[in-house]
Order: sequence, then structure tokens, then C-alpha cells
Amino acid sequence: MPIDIDQRPIILTGDRTTGPLHLGHYAGSLKNRIVLQHSHRQYLLLADAQALTDNASDPAKVRRNVLEVALDYLAVGIDPDRTTICVQSGLPALAELTLLYLNFVTVARLERNPTIKDEIQTRGFGRDIPAGFLCYPAAQAADITGFKANVVPVGEDQAPLIEQTNEIVRRLNRQIGRDVLPEAQALIPSIGRLPGVDGKAKMSKSQGNAIPLSATPDEIRDAVRRMYTDPNHLRASDPGTVEGNVVFTYLDAFDEDRAAVEDLKARYRHGGLGDSVVKRRLEDILQNLLAPIRERRTALGRDRGYVLDRLQAGTLAARERTQATLDELRDGLGLFTFDVARFEMHR
Amino acid sequence: MPIDIDQRPIILTGDRTTGPLHLGHYAGSLKNRIVLQHSHRQYLLLADAQALTDNASDPAKVRRNVLEVALDYLAVGIDPDRTTICVQSGLPALAELTLLYLNFVTVARLERNPTIKDEIQTRGFGRDIPAGFLCYPAAQAADITGFKANVVPVGEDQAPLIEQTNEIVRRLNRQIGRDVLPEAQALIPSIGRLPGVDGKAKMSKSQGNAIPLSATPDEIRDAVRRMYTDPNHLRASDPGTVEGNVVFTYLDAFDEDRAAVEDLKARYRHGGLGDSVVKRRLEDILQNLLAPIRERRTALGRDRGYVLDRLQAGTLAARERTQATLDELRDGLGLFTFDVARFEMHR
Repeated sequence: MPIDIDQRPIILTGDRTTGPLHLGHYAGSLKNRIVLQHSHRQYLLLADAQALTDNASDPAKVRRNVLEVALDYLAVGIDPDRTTICVQSGLPALAELTLLYLNFVTVARLERNPTIKDEIQTRGFGRDIPAGFLCYPAAQAADITGFKANVVPVGEDQAPLIEQTNEIVRRLNRQIGRDVLPEAQALIPSIGRLPGVDGKAKMSKSQGNAIPLSATPDEIRDAVRRMYTDPNHLRASDPGTVEGNVVFTYLDAFDEDRAAVEDLKARYRHGGLGDSVVKRRLEDILQNLLAPIRERRTALGRDRGYVLDRLQAGTLAARERTQATLDELRDGLGLFTFDVARFEMHR
Repeated sequence: MPIDIDQRPIILTGDRTTGPLHLGHYAGSLKNRIVLQHSHRQYLLLADAQALTDNASDPAKVRRNVLEVALDYLAVGIDPDRTTICVQSGLPALAELTLLYLNFVTVARLERNPTIKDEIQTRGFGRDIPAGFLCYPAAQAADITGFKANVVPVGEDQAPLIEQTNEIVRRLNRQIGRDVLPEAQALIPSIGRLPGVDGKAKMSKSQGNAIPLSATPDEIRDAVRRMYTDPNHLRASDPGTVEGNVVFTYLDAFDEDRAAVEDLKARYRHGGLGDSVVKRRLEDILQNLLAPIRERRTALGRDRGYVLDRLQAGTLAARERTQATLDELRDGLGLFTFDVARFEMHR
């Protein structure tokens, strides 16, 4: 076994490829990833196989968005020389790990998973839940362990998925008699989820309340104009409420001049500050933030070949890593292993 | 696409690698396979991945029996130049197809499958059924369709699994808009299942009522001696019952002199024919049947390298076939495809 010189912890994260990313992704995770790619060995998974679990009737959308999300990554500053960007469906070892893990978890345990329970309710699946969706915690365990990730950034609501992964890890390590797989730690972001421009808790493309990273200047202006503020703040002279006021939530997330924001908040609460002034400030900030991202995104979009080259190189590196984990695990369990590249059976 | 010259129908069958095969397998399927390898393109799957779904705590047993079952195949006369013998866990495309199909079938539908329902009850799983076991119909659909099998020999109790496979086939063909996958036909054997030597309906190693194909002459003699006959046939002069009498059931299955068997039956029914006479005849037949199989099996067992070479060659051929199906399906659905051998992404 070659000695692994890079001792940085391994971090795995990624996105379902169901639509281009938006400001909520930027604030909640992309910004962190740009920093983490220096301190960690970072893998970003374009989760197209997982996106299919509830988009089986529209695979073309899932495929198209592999490229869209990759464009978003590169445009915001994810550096493919520092971060391995890979396509989930190009990693057969993950499918094999998923099927293996499904033997080590009961149906009852999958159904008890709070994340799955919630999502079943949210999506209105009831008894007609696609089997692939129920099995998703095993697939996520395969993703995490396939890369031997030590750290996995997740929303607070997804922490139970990490716990379930670690249950599988402990079960397998115990059976094998040594720690082949590391347990993963959830990294829960310190800042909360960015609300939609309409004030709803979640920004989402399907709700029409999102600002995509590729938004044009006009789209940004419109979005800020119709942004939810304080419905009781009818005249500029009225005292206003800052809490739950989306414009201020966004200023908290994106305005780096903390003192100026606190000053604005005080004036808004006191009365005498109109929504339009605060919105103009926010619009400027968002225009400045998104302009270079949009430009890089457009330029990269013209060079599809380059983007696919990077995806292919990343997927190849990820394939070797995940296949090595599968081999080690199968060998530890006493199963046959195969040299996939050379089609050889290890004897 | 190269033109496929071999127009024979494709048949897929195989065995879970949980133990060496026995006389019940020989009568119920191996005998047929020896014939079918001439009229069909035959694939035999050493189903080690599926065996794991209810043997996750003993993977070494599953691995060991890959070789044992392969020895049984070769010993009875399966010709690896005519039949592709392959190891399921060496075919990553089957894992990928399984995960894909799980998105096209609901949990409720899996639970309604009569075969799964029965097996859950038989094995006493209850709510603690391993998820892999519940997902088994999707895995079987992957096996069948991965090889584009037209014909699948199954026991009568397994016909619902073929129906479920065809539901998935129709669903995918409809979505793609052309018949990428063929529907499979169940081939239900004309002769019933061979009972155990104790008269129980199923011959099974774990029940201790099986005669393995590798049985020694002494083991064969013992097994015939303790074979269940007519418990009311106490003296040779008493009239005896042929129905449910295991010795006669075995004579029906293995004695090629039909007239002699009918004559024996008549004499047994009438009274005046002792169990020992009938048993001696059966023992002779089984000794003659199993002696050459046992000898070939012993010789092959000494040449493990040869057996593994054949398994590797078969698995390689099967890998190409199943990968081609996966590619065609992913392409039809509009998903990314990958050249696994060259690690290239099709663009």
C-alpha cells in the first residue's frame, strides 16, 4: 500500500443535480467549501444517481444539471486542482457499496431514520415511496465511506444520516475485526439556512423564491424589489421590525460591513428608514457578489469541453479511491475481489 | 453496433452460493441446463451478492461456495465453452442496474411480492428484514435484464419475480420510447421438486436431508437406507403405498427404465416386495449417477487454477454484456454514460 503523504482530513460534500445552485447554496455551503479546499482533501459529489431517486421520470433534467452544478462550482471559485469534483453515477463502486450495506441495515431501521421520515411526509410519498428513496441512507453511507470521509458538512436536519452511516461503519469494522472504515463527523454550519425572497424558510428553485447564481442584473433587482420585509412597516417614518425581515437577514449574510448593518438596523427599528434605502444597499452588494460569478459562469459555459475534462479527471480519481475502499472492505469480509481495470479476479 | 450472429434465445439461471449443490438441484435444474446449453445462449450466475442478503454475517461461507458450486457445474457436465459461468459480485453493472431499478418500484410493490412475502415468513424476519432482502426483486430484475435474458428457469413459487421484472421492463421501455429491454419468460420445470430423504418437501443441506453431488459411496448408501418409505409397510408381504414414498419418487426421477419402475410399483402396492429390494435398486442407480460426477469433481478440485481461469473468463464476458446493457439503458434514459474500461465519459 502506498504511503499517503497528504495527512489533511478528508471532507465529502456535494449536491443533487436537480437544478442550478442559488444564493442559499452559496451562503450555506459553497463559501465554506472555497475555504475548506485548502485545509482539507475535499471531494465534491455531483449526486446524479441520488437525484434520480425522486426524479426517475425526468433523467434528462438530472443529466443536464450535472453540468449546471459543475459550472456553479467552478464559477464561485472551487478549484479543480484542489477539490476533486466527480460524477456519482461514474463511480460503480458506490453502487456496489450501497447494495452491500443494504444487507447490514434493516427495513425498520431505514424507516425510523428521521430525515427519511420527514422527507417522505414533505414529498407526500406515503406508502408509494420509491424503494430507491427508502434506501437512500445506505447510498449516503456508501458515498461517505467510499471516500473514507472524516468530515461531512450537513444541515442540522441531516445529522441522523451521519449517525446511520456510523452505525454501518461500526457494524462492519466489528465484523472484520479492525477499523477499515473511519467514522464520519457531521460539520453543521454555524449560520442558519437562508430564507427565500418571499420569507419562506427555504430558498428553492421550484418555489420561485430563489436567486440563482447565474441571475442577470435585472433578475437580481427584481428579486430584491419583491423581497419580504416587515408588512407593518407601511411608511418610512414607522418603526420597523428587523427579525424575520428578509432584507436584513440577507445583509447579515452578505454585507461585510457589520457596523453599517447594525446602524441600519437601529435606524430601521427606530423609524425613519424606508425599505427602499435598505434594499438599494442589499442590491448593490448582491450585484457586486454575483457579477464576477456570472461572468466566469458564462465564459466556462462556452468551454464545455474544459468542464467535462475536469469532471472526467475528477471522476477517474474518485473511481480509484472508491474502488480501493470497496476492495479493502470485500477483502476484509472475506469476499472475492476483482481488479476492475484489468478485469482480473484476485485469488 | 456489431451484428449479433448467434440468434439463439438467451437463458439466465444460477444459484446462490450458500452451499454445494445436491441431487435436488441436479434433478430440478442442472440436468436441464446440460441440454439447454446447446439450444440457448446460456449464462450461469454464481449469485454471491444475492447470497449475502441473508448471510451478511458469514461472507466467507458465501465466497467458499462460489468455488464449490462452480465445481458442481463443471462436474455434472456444464461446458464452459458453451455456457458462460460468471460471478455476480464481479459484475458492477448489475449493482448499478439494481439501484436504478429501485427508483422505478415502490416499497409497497416490493412488499406485495408473494415470493418475498413467503420468504420473510419462512425465515422469520418480521420487521427486521435486511433491506437488501426486500430489494432482492430489483436485484433479480437487474440480473435478468442485464443479460437481456429471454428465458428464465424458475420454480413455480418464483414466477411472481419474473412478473415484477417485466413490470420494470415495460416501465423503462415506455419511458425510453423503444424496447431496449426484452420481457423475460419463466420456464417452469415439468417435474416437481425432489423431496428430502426424510420425506420433507424440500431437500436442503441445512435440514440434513440432502444428498450432495459430492457424496461418497457410503454417504449415498446411508442416505438411501434411512430414506422415508411407507410407514405402514411393516412387512414385505404387506401392501405398500407408492405415493409420497421417497424411494419411488427418486426412482421416477432417476431410473430410466420406466417399465421396470412401473412393475416395481405394482408389486409394491400388491404386497410381497420389501423396501430393501427397492432401495437396493435406487442405490445402484444413484451410485452409478454420482460416481463419475464425484470423480470429475475431485479431479477439478485439485486444479483450482483452471476453475478460477474459467470463472474469470466467464465473468469478463458477462461484464461486457451487462455493461453494454447498462450503457444502452442510461443512454436511452438520457443519463451520462461512461466507458468503464477506458475511464472515459461519453459526452
